[in-house]
Amino acid sequence: MPFSFKHRPQEAVTTQTPTPFSPAPSTHPAPRRDVYLDFAAATPMAPEAVAAMLPYLSERFQNPSAPYAAARAVGADLEDARARLAHVLGARPANVTLTAGATEANNLAIAAVSGQVLVAATEHQSVLEAAAARDHATIPVGPDGRVDPADVARAIGPATELVSVSLANGEVGAIQPIRKIAAVVAAERARRLAGREGRPILLHTDASQAAGYCSVNVSSLGADLVTVSAAKVYGPKQVGLLYAADGVRLRPLVRGGGQEGGVRSGTQNVAGVMAFACALELAERLRPRECRRLATLRDALQARLVREFPWCVVAGPRKAANRLPGLLHVSFPGLEARRLVILLEREGVSVGTGSACAASKMRVSHVLSAMGVPERVAAGSLRITLGRPTTEGDVDYAADAICRVVRAEAARMGLGEVRDA
Amino acid sequence: MPFSFKHRPQEAVTTQTPTPFSPAPSTHPAPRRDVYLDFAAATPMAPEAVAAMLPYLSERFQNPSAPYAAARAVGADLEDARARLAHVLGARPANVTLTAGATEANNLAIAAVSGQVLVAATEHQSVLEAAAARDHATIPVGPDGRVDPADVARAIGPATELVSVSLANGEVGAIQPIRKIAAVVAAERARRLAGREGRPILLHTDASQAAGYCSVNVSSLGADLVTVSAAKVYGPKQVGLLYAADGVRLRPLVRGGGQEGGVRSGTQNVAGVMAFACALELAERLRPRECRRLATLRDALQARLVREFPWCVVAGPRKAANRLPGLLHVSFPGLEARRLVILLEREGVSVGTGSACAASKMRVSHVLSAMGVPERVAAGSLRITLGRPTTEGDVDYAADAICRVVRAEAARMGLGEVRDA
Repeated sequence: MPFSFKHRPQEAVTTQTPTPFSPAPSTHPAPRRDVYLDFAAATPMAPEAVAAMLPYLSERFQNPSAPYAAARAVGADLEDARARLAHVLGARPANVTLTAGATEANNLAIAAVSGQVLVAATEHQSVLEAAAARDHATIPVGPDGRVDPADVARAIGPATELVSVSLANGEVGAIQPIRKIAAVVAAERARRLAGREGRPILLHTDASQAAGYCSVNVSSLGADLVTVSAAKVYGPKQVGLLYAADGVRLRPLVRGGGQEGGVRSGTQNVAGVMAFACALELAERLRPRECRRLATLRDALQARLVREFPWCVVAGPRKAANRLPGLLHVSFPGLEARRLVILLEREGVSVGTGSACAASKMRVSHVLSAMGVPERVAAGSLRITLGRPTTEGDVDYAADAICRVVRAEAARMGLGEVRDA
Repeated sequence: MPFSFKHRPQEAVTTQTPTPFSPAPSTHPAPRRDVYLDFAAATPMAPEAVAAMLPYLSERFQNPSAPYAAARAVGADLEDARARLAHVLGARPANVTLTAGATEANNLAIAAVSGQVLVAATEHQSVLEAAAARDHATIPVGPDGRVDPADVARAIGPATELVSVSLANGEVGAIQPIRKIAAVVAAERARRLAGREGRPILLHTDASQAAGYCSVNVSSLGADLVTVSAAKVYGPKQVGLLYAADGVRLRPLVRGGGQEGGVRSGTQNVAGVMAFACALELAERLRPRECRRLATLRDALQARLVREFPWCVVAGPRKAANRLPGLLHVSFPGLEARRLVILLEREGVSVGTGSACAASKMRVSHVLSAMGVPERVAAGSLRITLGRPTTEGDVDYAADAICRVVRAEAARMGLGEVRDA
């Protein structure tokens, strides 16, 4: 049965007496449940966001560019949604370009300049691939996945026009020191202005994985371009936005009717945008509470796994403030992540291995490579991400399942006896 | 009240006896109703398509690229939808690239070649603007909006690599002789092959406005690239596809995780695609019946208007087979379309003026210009498009409203007395 927001009986299940038909308590202490722990790959839509969407699929379906009253009303609703999205960003509506997802927004950001693009080595594929088609260079990351602002300063050359560093990495959860990076970019901009160099320099941050967990206020971030994805904040897939500061001129990837100020033509996905506005507002409202709640659950899961498997490797920043609260990246060296995923799936637990986009390709994650994680460690990595519907019972169930599966796999590989001793 | 699929009492209203509170029968013979007649600009989603979408917004939300069972099931559903879309086109699933709408699909088609692009003068803005950014030339159209295949043959030069002619024009409803144009392109391809010229030549057709009214079977069309929009066949907005024949190599506009064979990165809009497959299948199934039904309603409306206003000008092909069945483009020379739209809106009737995308810009339609329609005629043009929910009662009501409004406006402009005499 797939995941659902619907109520499921879930607390106290671990204390239930096994029936004669239950598996032995030592291997299956709790009745089977489905626990989805891959919220960094996809989120179900919040019921509020679905409700916000529905009228625009049927009654309010008119083309927002059409001239009659019903269509103008739809157009006004679309602009209202844009204003609400802008408000969460602390921006003006005119600075928000609606896109078909974060990948398109990232591509649009990279296309805003013609000079060299600097990207962190751990960026999302959409940033890396857009940059790879251009003059570009890579900023290294530390073993915790974080960018050192001094490395940004070193990497900036006379041809650099854009620096792109995500606000948070979706694979290991590293929250980047974006304000310090913004200060480096601002200093270079000031230097160029003082030296009468005409070349601009902009900072782009992909906040797709961070939204809902970090502030996406553009002023406090200090970024000129910010990507936000609806799909990661319990909104619909292929809906996103790119914030662009005043004076940044975006160049269209898709031309046509001139919607979105000519930057992204095509009749807007009104229903999707209405849902996005609702979802982002909700994520922002729940942010403080969810950050605390998820960090507590994640920390408990991490503590349990580290206790059971002292040889496991937890990746990402140690400091809580520098890591996404609901994310746990843990490696079991010598085990194969793909096998773990399949064995966990049989227990009803869905977890990821690296980013879902690249997962189907079965390569070693570029993020872990950039962090200098040895291949044997990387190959046994799970990315476990908790989300809004995740309960303590879910985490307990998943922890039991992970422990069972890892113990069995370690034994099979001849690792268990040595290490569990 | 906005348009709805819900049942409304509608037949026999024109014969209803006016109550003392009704307006005088001569000006308002029927109770107010809302009649949307701009289905070429936007369609409400079919209830079946909404139903097909919903599970993928909540329960079946997983990332189709993720590795565990629930996600793989979503991925399988996505591929099933692609296969169903391909089936309607008579194509294989591998030839279908899912896009965020027809505008993106058209841009992707134009980007498939690096040489000269030939576009009909009446193409959608997304084709014209994408071509305008490239080496391109324009194919003229006749006064009925149709392309003469001989003009295509004349326009093809040694550098031509792509010919783009829509299957049907959304503004005047001209259905293009695409098979004859395909034959011209095929002849040029054969000539080049025989002469050992390496340069390819492809035919693209934007079938966005035609789907649901014309066959979109790619073999019978003879096109190498075909665009279809979900938003025009009672599916969701910003969902579309580009068919590309074997051997045509598409070049990505948006790069990243490598979805859609690397051609359109970004997690797919699974819910939207499920709805698209449902909507396109339904449109294809209803096609013969809807073509007959809408042509009958449209012909009755046209006959009524021509009878009432013999001075009006109906644009587009005369021959029924060459014109979209639900579309009536009618001009009232000397009147201003924008005013007519607003006056009709007050009567509850929503109609378009030219294409909605460009409508907000208040320019004279490029389609009418290309057809040689004088500016005074073009300025008084309404595009009336009937759709699946349109009833005979709706058309009667709209016809009454249009007659009242045009009569009043003609009188105001001092045209009525002369012409109605």
